[in-house]
Amino acid sequence: MMKNVIGRTVPGYVEGYGEVTLFNGAFQTLSNLFRRAPAVKTRKPSDNKLVGNLEEVFRRIPVKDGMTLSFHHHFRNGDGVLNMVLATAAKLGVKNLNIAISSVFPVHAPLVEHIKNGVVTGLDTNYMSGPVADAISRGVLSRPAVMRTHGGRARAIECGQLKIDVAFIAAPAADDYGNLNGIMGPAACGSLGYAIPDAEYADHVVAVTDCLCEYPLSPVSISQTRVDYVVTVNAIGDPRGIVSGSTKVTKDPVGLKIAQTAARVIKAAGFIKEGLSFQTGAGGASLATAHYLGKMMKQQGVTASFAMGGVTSYLVDMLNHGLLRKITDVQGFDLEAVRSIGANPNHIEVSAGVYANPFNAGCIVNKLDTVFLGATEIDTDFNVNVTTGSNGVIMGGSGGHSDAAAGAKLTLIVANLLRGRLPTVRDKALTVTTPGETVDMLVTERGVAVNPLRTDLYKEMLAAGLPVKDIHDLKREAEKIAGVPQAIKTGDRIVAVVEYRDGTVIDVVRQVTG
Amino acid sequence: MMKNVIGRTVPGYVEGYGEVTLFNGAFQTLSNLFRRAPAVKTRKPSDNKLVGNLEEVFRRIPVKDGMTLSFHHHFRNGDGVLNMVLATAAKLGVKNLNIAISSVFPVHAPLVEHIKNGVVTGLDTNYMSGPVADAISRGVLSRPAVMRTHGGRARAIECGQLKIDVAFIAAPAADDYGNLNGIMGPAACGSLGYAIPDAEYADHVVAVTDCLCEYPLSPVSISQTRVDYVVTVNAIGDPRGIVSGSTKVTKDPVGLKIAQTAARVIKAAGFIKEGLSFQTGAGGASLATAHYLGKMMKQQGVTASFAMGGVTSYLVDMLNHGLLRKITDVQGFDLEAVRSIGANPNHIEVSAGVYANPFNAGCIVNKLDTVFLGATEIDTDFNVNVTTGSNGVIMGGSGGHSDAAAGAKLTLIVANLLRGRLPTVRDKALTVTTPGETVDMLVTERGVAVNPLRTDLYKEMLAAGLPVKDIHDLKREAEKIAGVPQAIKTGDRIVAVVEYRDGTVIDVVRQVTG
Repeated sequence: MMKNVIGRTVPGYVEGYGEVTLFNGAFQTLSNLFRRAPAVKTRKPSDNKLVGNLEEVFRRIPVKDGMTLSFHHHFRNGDGVLNMVLATAAKLGVKNLNIAISSVFPVHAPLVEHIKNGVVTGLDTNYMSGPVADAISRGVLSRPAVMRTHGGRARAIECGQLKIDVAFIAAPAADDYGNLNGIMGPAACGSLGYAIPDAEYADHVVAVTDCLCEYPLSPVSISQTRVDYVVTVNAIGDPRGIVSGSTKVTKDPVGLKIAQTAARVIKAAGFIKEGLSFQTGAGGASLATAHYLGKMMKQQGVTASFAMGGVTSYLVDMLNHGLLRKITDVQGFDLEAVRSIGANPNHIEVSAGVYANPFNAGCIVNKLDTVFLGATEIDTDFNVNVTTGSNGVIMGGSGGHSDAAAGAKLTLIVANLLRGRLPTVRDKALTVTTPGETVDMLVTERGVAVNPLRTDLYKEMLAAGLPVKDIHDLKREAEKIAGVPQAIKTGDRIVAVVEYRDGTVIDVVRQVTG
Repeated sequence: MMKNVIGRTVPGYVEGYGEVTLFNGAFQTLSNLFRRAPAVKTRKPSDNKLVGNLEEVFRRIPVKDGMTLSFHHHFRNGDGVLNMVLATAAKLGVKNLNIAISSVFPVHAPLVEHIKNGVVTGLDTNYMSGPVADAISRGVLSRPAVMRTHGGRARAIECGQLKIDVAFIAAPAADDYGNLNGIMGPAACGSLGYAIPDAEYADHVVAVTDCLCEYPLSPVSISQTRVDYVVTVNAIGDPRGIVSGSTKVTKDPVGLKIAQTAARVIKAAGFIKEGLSFQTGAGGASLATAHYLGKMMKQQGVTASFAMGGVTSYLVDMLNHGLLRKITDVQGFDLEAVRSIGANPNHIEVSAGVYANPFNAGCIVNKLDTVFLGATEIDTDFNVNVTTGSNGVIMGGSGGHSDAAAGAKLTLIVANLLRGRLPTVRDKALTVTTPGETVDMLVTERGVAVNPLRTDLYKEMLAAGLPVKDIHDLKREAEKIAGVPQAIKTGDRIVAVVEYRDGTVIDVVRQVTG
């Protein structure tokens, strides 16, 4: 057992994962790699990519035991393709698959059975919630799951640490030669950003579509030059499932108070200025922060150069009202976002790599002025947990959390000081997802705390009359109300390895025993 | 000395080029490679890409003797960047550079001096005309130039045979983080298609712009994730130079007759049908063929799914009048094309690799029904020369000629039977650019000839009453008028190696001695 730079205890070697490179600081582990070189493909002019069904694709490739199959999560809780492909694998008797899917939702519950039956023995994802997360927390997988950030997944694919044998792309629109986009068809989902690295680097790329269009399809999100097979199915998913989780502005007065304070913090830090840029999480308090930020921008007569994120109708409204000049979109969070990206040339699709891969010539998060993100726990070193819940069960993961935190000039955690009856501020978080050095401030309903690394910010907040407190005092206040929470008991077995965006191990998740 | 499959005499090893892989048929040499894996880059959020001037870029990289610098030719005879960069190299005393530029024009005349002075000792290009082509034909370069096809250059870059140290991208619009496009700014040139592989695979990428825009620039043709430096200069080029060469419909009655016949050939072959696709060369007779093709399409009430090519106002007009649903554009040939690609979402920018690289999961030329191309010579096996002129001097090169010929279902060579006083049909072409097996028919003012490989076409042409002749008879007719041309005398020294799109050597160009 070793401790990484933020004091998390991590083994030097994890069975089923391999050698551990310890997290050593957000910008300390630099690249010394070449990008992965996928196999060169070739097609004669007369070749045809249309294949009748998934079974036929499995045979043509062929999909073999032990392969890594990849999927994207733009349909969120409406995805139909993962279940479809794994049912095919099960039917054909394929075993021991590694599933690399950018996020896992409740709709993916059948995956639990496939794990129990040995069809799937590995999972690589950036976020999980629902039955799969629950089962994994309880040890259903023999190998630990790998949990990445959105930028880290792109990095792992582009740099070759995550080698994909077959990428299955749920494609709302496709032509017969494999040009794909997400903005047309009955199941339009908007951006296909998370699928772009998969298509670029997988050995085999399969487009699964329910809307076959005339060649050449445009706009092109994923190009014919990487797609090997096009399969038509009845329905790739239910776009209504895209709107899932908390993608509405909170109505809770505590949440609104936090959001209002966060907007004041951003102003005090000098970011309500012409051409500002920001990213918002999809949680209610984050969205409410964007709302108050927009109000302040209007008052001061300034407009933003761009906003990034999982995109909601709130950002689309700001774009349409001229408060925002561009949206860069790796994923739509509601159907307004889906409509907008298909219609507004200033609403731009970007890949996961362009969004957040730390190992390229510069990703978009590097250009963010500010980001406001949620937390389930934050420790007194400002390390944030968005991976495990109060019972120790996995209920999330970084997604873009760590990426945006690392990139933005001002990273705010907006969170209720108490979640239910539990204090959010802890001496030690159960799991660390995002390192404290990339978090500048905590904003709660009972005051704000500034990371001691940011003495400049501390002065600005005091000068603006914000209720600045030491994070330890916020912790004590919460504990006075709710008591000191009992430590969660976990087993020794590691059920998930939490990788930071650079591929180092920032933490591990241990099996829930209760 | 060896002979390749079309009987061209080529050494097994060429000094300054290396081992030769003999051309063995248009689809015989298959890929057994991995794509090139460029170095992984990384940028911290605080890093800045703006650099004051080219000298500073040379020092920062640093540019060293013997490196390969790459350039694109979207400005054609208006390009300012190659000369600017080489003047910088000369000033700083850099020697022995290899210049990989997608095409060379008269404006690049200063390159001759740089070759004489040892600043440049290698040239890798798909097309050259003007003083540089003349000097190379006469032996100014110590190493032979490598002449590729547009698709072959993309292949060589993407598969790693052409390793670029530094790509200089003339960028009509750029933001400070290196997002680039060709449709904005005072020197808009339209598509940046030929520069896309360079940006994707070069170790260092330098954007040279005269129009710095707010971040994030959109649309994005080349992404910030690959661009290392952004340099602002007064003018990257003169967009008026884009319109150069013969990009107007011919007015010559002979040319018009050929074009009319070509359109009849296309009809007789069954391609005047709903959803057809075509590519046209930029030559006058090719453009005139598109004109007659459009007339026939109107008469029959059919529309084309797409047209490809260096794009001119003729294609733009067809798009605007609904005769054409999409244009896929790797390069604009006039300012109408430049305007259209910036304004019409059905006018789509594509990279050189998407256009024509034979080694990916399928390029656009594979989807062409028909292409009509020019020739300076065609031999009785239908092998075409568009590389050397009647005096043996290099005056062109494949560009996309061989690529489109290989991809299209019906490849026509439209050419006057006599060029000046010289027959176009020869027993043996001085240089072979495009192999006869990929050429289906020759269309001249004195009849059409069908490649004997296409007995199906032969019957269709006869049935349609077209003036079908044996290609040997066309040759004899021409020789009856103009006499048998004298063979051009060349020296032994190889001044250029002509690579087919798959990287095999289809021919060599020998030094002009006259």
